[in-house]
Amino acid sequence: MIRVVLVGPREAANVGMVARAMKNFGLKELVLVAPEIRDMSEAYRLSSRAHDVLERARIVPTLDEAIADCVLVAGTTARRRERYAGLAATPRAAAGLIRAAAARGPVALLFGRENFGLFNEELDRCHYVLHIPTAPDYASLNLAQAVLLVAYELFQSQAGALPETDPAPAASLEAYFRDLEAYLIEIGYTDPPRLPSVMRHFRRMAHKALLTEEEVRMLRGLLRQSRWAMGRRRD
Amino acid sequence: MIRVVLVGPREAANVGMVARAMKNFGLKELVLVAPEIRDMSEAYRLSSRAHDVLERARIVPTLDEAIADCVLVAGTTARRRERYAGLAATPRAAAGLIRAAAARGPVALLFGRENFGLFNEELDRCHYVLHIPTAPDYASLNLAQAVLLVAYELFQSQAGALPETDPAPAASLEAYFRDLEAYLIEIGYTDPPRLPSVMRHFRRMAHKALLTEEEVRMLRGLLRQSRWAMGRRRD
Repeated sequence: MIRVVLVGPREAANVGMVARAMKNFGLKELVLVAPEIRDMSEAYRLSSRAHDVLERARIVPTLDEAIADCVLVAGTTARRRERYAGLAATPRAAAGLIRAAAARGPVALLFGRENFGLFNEELDRCHYVLHIPTAPDYASLNLAQAVLLVAYELFQSQAGALPETDPAPAASLEAYFRDLEAYLIEIGYTDPPRLPSVMRHFRRMAHKALLTEEEVRMLRGLLRQSRWAMGRRRD
Repeated sequence: MIRVVLVGPREAANVGMVARAMKNFGLKELVLVAPEIRDMSEAYRLSSRAHDVLERARIVPTLDEAIADCVLVAGTTARRRERYAGLAATPRAAAGLIRAAAARGPVALLFGRENFGLFNEELDRCHYVLHIPTAPDYASLNLAQAVLLVAYELFQSQAGALPETDPAPAASLEAYFRDLEAYLIEIGYTDPPRLPSVMRHFRRMAHKALLTEEEVRMLRGLLRQSRWAMGRRRD
């Protein structure tokens, strides 16, 4: 199942056009994270015959809630150069793997705010950071157009080969990252100001590995055991 | 040069979104055929920073005028099954050839009316009839979305190999087709009611062949010579 997650959308018209674009390419599950929209009537007006997508849409307060059960998270950005914890790819290049992952469990496609896109902390939640290639002097795609193009690429692609792995859901990974953050400070590997940048590298490794639930348990066990051993040394 | 030709558009808002979609993927030449729009201000409002495309847009009264100089014409349709004089293809499959032809001369991409699309006679002008693959139960793309997806595919593709031919412009082909129509009636090959369907087959052959100007001259010469020979027999 492929889930479209709109983070902080502000305009009902865009949500309506997104519902339409999803339906054009067979996507049905829409989640809005903390939308800043009071009146959705314009969304219904513009979503001609895609009302069912809007009616089933869920609204959640945080991104974590939207992706907790997802085995793969792909975010979109118009910013080309920055380095995130996810692997950079075009929608076309990532489409096969996204489809393959969706056969194993829920996959989230994140689209950011109309004005600011996704924040870096949000992009750091992503296995893949998708950049839609556009003319360099006019890169601004609106929200519904970005959804349309990504949904189109997924529809066009066949499910690619997924590495021999059953990726852990985002909530498990986040629990591991929280453990690791605490541990890195505890052992003096880094300090709080540099922690976000260090964590970006660790997140990236985990995303590239498409860690399984079992592997996440092993890594958390390793952290626990390290702490235990430190405690013993101090005694 | 790739030209976007909107045939009979009715809503200024769509023209504005089309200008934007074109600019996203580096297309600059827009032609409106007999638009049914009185006030273009909504187009300007919605075309954020793509005003230059609208300002340079040409308005012409007939499709023939819009495509007369084009060496390749590709039309779009949501109707899958019908048989036209053009070769059916997806935008992705045709993109390489369209780019290659655009290196030789103007290429026209035709998009039809918001409600009815392109008429069959208009699709018969096309070398390629493009069908954008969508979910079967919800095929309705709006005008700007269709332009966005076709422009995106062209932007993504590299110029493919063009057969060793320098295709004749549409105006030359149309002159040949008019000669041929008259000739087919004259010699009793068909009758006026069946003529459109018969011509569709002849158009298709010409489109598949990507006839050169020289070849079109040869075919017209053949018709002339046949007429002359008939005249002699009657004497």
